[in-house]
Parts: sequence; structure tokens; C-alpha cells
Amino acid sequence: MKKLIQEKTDFLQDMLDGLTITNPNVEVIAETVVVRKQKKSSGVALVSGGGSGHEPAHAGYVAEGMLDAAVCGEVFTSPTPDKVLAAIKAVDNGEGVLLIVKNYAGDVMNFEMAKEMAAMEDIQVEMVIVRDDIAIDDVEKRRGVAGTVFVHKYAGYLAELGKPLAELKDDVQGLIDQIRTIGMALTPPAVPTTGKYGFDIEDDEMEIGIGIHGERGLARVPVEPVSQIVERLIQQLRTEVKDDQLIVMINGMGGTPLSELQIVTKYVGAHLEKEGKTVKSWFVGDYMTALDMQGFSLTFVPYDERVLAALHAPTTSRFFN
Amino acid sequence: MKKLIQEKTDFLQDMLDGLTITNPNVEVIAETVVVRKQKKSSGVALVSGGGSGHEPAHAGYVAEGMLDAAVCGEVFTSPTPDKVLAAIKAVDNGEGVLLIVKNYAGDVMNFEMAKEMAAMEDIQVEMVIVRDDIAIDDVEKRRGVAGTVFVHKYAGYLAELGKPLAELKDDVQGLIDQIRTIGMALTPPAVPTTGKYGFDIEDDEMEIGIGIHGERGLARVPVEPVSQIVERLIQQLRTEVKDDQLIVMINGMGGTPLSELQIVTKYVGAHLEKEGKTVKSWFVGDYMTALDMQGFSLTFVPYDERVLAALHAPTTSRFFN
Repeated sequence: MKKLIQEKTDFLQDMLDGLTITNPNVEVIAETVVVRKQKKSSGVALVSGGGSGHEPAHAGYVAEGMLDAAVCGEVFTSPTPDKVLAAIKAVDNGEGVLLIVKNYAGDVMNFEMAKEMAAMEDIQVEMVIVRDDIAIDDVEKRRGVAGTVFVHKYAGYLAELGKPLAELKDDVQGLIDQIRTIGMALTPPAVPTTGKYGFDIEDDEMEIGIGIHGERGLARVPVEPVSQIVERLIQQLRTEVKDDQLIVMINGMGGTPLSELQIVTKYVGAHLEKEGKTVKSWFVGDYMTALDMQGFSLTFVPYDERVLAALHAPTTSRFFN
Repeated sequence: MKKLIQEKTDFLQDMLDGLTITNPNVEVIAETVVVRKQKKSSGVALVSGGGSGHEPAHAGYVAEGMLDAAVCGEVFTSPTPDKVLAAIKAVDNGEGVLLIVKNYAGDVMNFEMAKEMAAMEDIQVEMVIVRDDIAIDDVEKRRGVAGTVFVHKYAGYLAELGKPLAELKDDVQGLIDQIRTIGMALTPPAVPTTGKYGFDIEDDEMEIGIGIHGERGLARVPVEPVSQIVERLIQQLRTEVKDDQLIVMINGMGGTPLSELQIVTKYVGAHLEKEGKTVKSWFVGDYMTALDMQGFSLTFVPYDERVLAALHAPTTSRFFN
């Protein structure tokens, strides 16, 4: 395995150092918590995070119009409660904090614990859990994947509007309930900290329903032309998203060249058109990656004027456009 | 080799179809020429292009503040003169056209031929050739690589200001003479149209001085920690760029995860600081790729207030930020 790294153990810290060099609007506190340098003086503060390896998620979304803080764990490893608490305390301005958590046992447990610790210090904290990955049948067990980035943007927009915490939480939960994603991979992620690949796969196989840590999904099948891959994914998605007007994200997994994401876009567009669906807005790029995994995920959100306005609202994050 | 494609022969067309789905501001004419839908009514028009496989270059830079047209060849293959001519005729508004060409024999020959054909139709055309890749000693033979994107942005800014063709050409040439780049790769590009890898390399080796088509460079050596890789590249660059204030691009080659580019950034920053250099602006991301190659290139431009203003000026391209 070949990687552009210094020491395995320095991966997270080096990455954060690199981020702050190029983004003068953020700083790192408590070693691994990225916050805006200019703390928001009003409005609900938004904290997300989780294991690293999903760049630009989540630290790249700490920006005006999106997150106030990102708590960064080691690669594919949940951050500890004390770091989440440090983030909460750093960003709260008295109007409360919303935690946006992807549905992984460690993340949920550690963010929940931090929430309780914050409550003891009289900080109002609410939490939402994103579970957009339909590769798993049981809704409670569904993982949070690329759709989480839409949640960041939507919540960021509402927070800028000054929505109070309880309302904001309900509103964000309403969007979460609508988002559906499914992914696929040609190759596993190469994990720099362990020196191991996320899974083994043959030279002519792909994994359908993959997670963003290389977790196995629905099926392992021979690689197909992209139109068939897209058809498989859309078949899964349309059992849950039946709307005719959609917002669509095609998310690169980190090692997928833009040319291939554009080719995927063509076939998703053609397939949806054939089904009489209209795509009101496209988001194509690397939003929530799995290190250098080659593959993509497809996210559908039913079109809603207010959601689209939120997604198109300005942000200073260079990674959401 | 696993790829997200339909048919090998459809790669270019499918990619362009995908691009136009997501970017309503551009359209494809003459099959493979991407132009702005809203043709500029005044000012010098800018045309670039070359083989595909370098996305977002060049079609992603067809936008206000950057290019007027990108002529897209097949993967790693020069576009033909008739396509370049079609681009020139589509974008010229009477104030002339500047061709921005990377220094590859086929590109230079075909753009030159189109220039002559345009002259016969009384269209004023000038051409500049970018040769920023210092992996080759002979300046005349130096390849055009990631620095070309700075040229697009600078020329786009000057064209918006209404600079006449002859002056604009001289000014752009002045910048070209200042840009220096050197690249490295851990893995070869996987070429979808041939089904072949750009080169063979051992599991513990890297290539220093690589080109954006996987051309061999200066040295093949065992993979090193990133600080040593960075030191190698900077050693090469500083023989030619001796200025204390720099504009720096760290360009991903297509398959390099953002986390690793951020790690590279840290060590480039640390190394330059140790040498007493100041980086006035950083550009970190995938600007000029080689399909899914893992690696990066490092570009230095001596700081100049006017160049920086041009690079920071607005553009509607979502790929230059």
C-alpha cells in the first residue's frame, strides 16, 4: 500500500495542519476539533464529526452557512466524548447546539454522552441521527453516508435564519427522513493507519450497497457497464423515493476520477428521464469519501422548494458547490 | 482494470453529456467542443483544450472569468485542427482569439494549423504555449501541466478587463515564463480507452517528475515519507524559482484523496517556512489530473500582486477555488 503520509500515527494531525494552512477561517482546538475562527454570536450552533477518512467531510464544511464545528476522530474511528464536549462548549453562544451524527454505534454513543455532559453544564443540546443508507433493510440500523452533507447545508441555512433549537431540530429531522442513498465500489479503501485494505475483491467484481468505511453491502457481482450499475442503484432507491421531482447527489468515494462521475451523471440522468422523473438540482463531486476508494454513491431527496433554496444558499465552504 | 464507463469508445461523449447535464452554462458544439452558452459580446476569446483525462481541465474551466471554449480530444489524444477551428469560429466576436496550448507535439501542431486556417478566414488568432514541467531540462521540450490552469485564470481575468489581443498575449506569456511545476506519482493512470496502465511500477516505488499522461520523469525511487518527497520536489523547483514570496498549487492527480493532499500541504508549508519563504496563496485540489493516477504536482509562481488579484477574481467555474 502506497500513501502520501509521514507517519501512520500522524495522519489526522497532519491533515488538520494542512487544512488550517489553506483555510484561514478555521482553527483547531482540543487537538482535533475544527471550529470557525469567528464564532457565531447568535443562532443555534451546529456540530458534526466522526471518524476521519471522509474528507472533505466533516472539517471542510466548517464554514459560514454550514457547520460551526467538526469533531475529527482518527481514521474510521469515532471521536471521544470529551472532544465532542469541547466542540459544544466552544461553539455555544447561549442559543443551543445541534449535533448532527451519522448512525454508527460509536458515534451515537459518544455524541450522546457529550450531550449529557453538556446538559450538566446547562448547555442546551439536541441531536439528530442521519441514516440515509438504504443498503440495510432495518431502518434503525441504517448507516449515515453522503446524504449527511445535505443535512449540514440545510441545518446551516436554518441556523443562519435564526431558527430556535427545538424547531430547527424538527425541521432537520424532517429532511433526514426524506434522504436516501446507496453506494457502490470497484476497489476497497486503503487504510493508512492500519496498512490494510477495507476488503478483498476480485479484479472483475464490484460491491453494491457499500458503506463509507468499506463495509460490505447488498451484493457482490461482476463489474457491469455503468448504465446497468445505475439501474441497480435506482431500482433500490425508487422503492423508497417515489417522487417525480428530485434533488440528486452523485458522490465520489475519493479515488474516482471526475470523468467517471460525469459518465455516471449522464446515465443517471438518462435513466431518470426515461422514468419521467425531473432532476431539479445536481450535486456531483467528492462530498463524503472513503479514503481512496473507487466508486460512488447516489442520493435522492424529494424536491422541495425550501430544501433547494437552502442547498443553493451561499456558504464559504469551497467543498459544497 | 475496473472503470465506471459504458463503452470504451463512448468515454469522451458520455463525459461531455454528463458535464452539460450539471452545468447549464455550457453547451457542446462540433461534438467535442465545450463553449459558454452565453457567448461573450466583447473582449478577446480564450480557447484551450487537448486530450481528455485531465478533468476538470479543460472543459470545467469554460466559465465566466476563465475560458470561452475547450476543445476536447479523446483520452490523452490531441483534438484535430477542424475542432479547434470550430471553437475559434464559435467564440470570436471580432476582437480575436488567444489559444492556450500545453506543450505536446500533437497539440501544438493541431492548434497551430487551426490558427492558420482561421487567419485565412480573417480571424485574428494568437497562441501561447505552456511549458511549466521542469522534469525536463530542455525548456523547449518541457510539457504543459498543472500550471496551465493558472494561465487560464489569469488570461480570463485580463480578457474580462478588455485587454486587446496583442497585449493580452504578451502579458500571459509573461506569466507563463514564471510558472514552474514538478509532479510525482505512486500509481499509473488506468487508461479506459486502451485498457492499459500508463506504466508499470513496483508496490514500493514512486516516480518523480511524472507527466500528466503517466510519462516517466526524473527518477524512480522507493516510496518515502511525504516530507522527503516534498523536499525532493522543492529542491528541483528552487533551482528555478528563487523568489521569497510564492503562490503555490498542490494539484491532485485524480486518484489522490483530499486527506493526502492536505498532508502534503502541511509539509510543503513547513519546508518553505524553514527556508524563509512566504506563501501568499494556496491552491489545493484536483485541477489538472491524469485519470485516476495517485500522486500530486507542486507548482510555484513568484508572488505578484496583479497575478494574485487575477487568481482570486470571481469565476463561475466551480472547479477553480
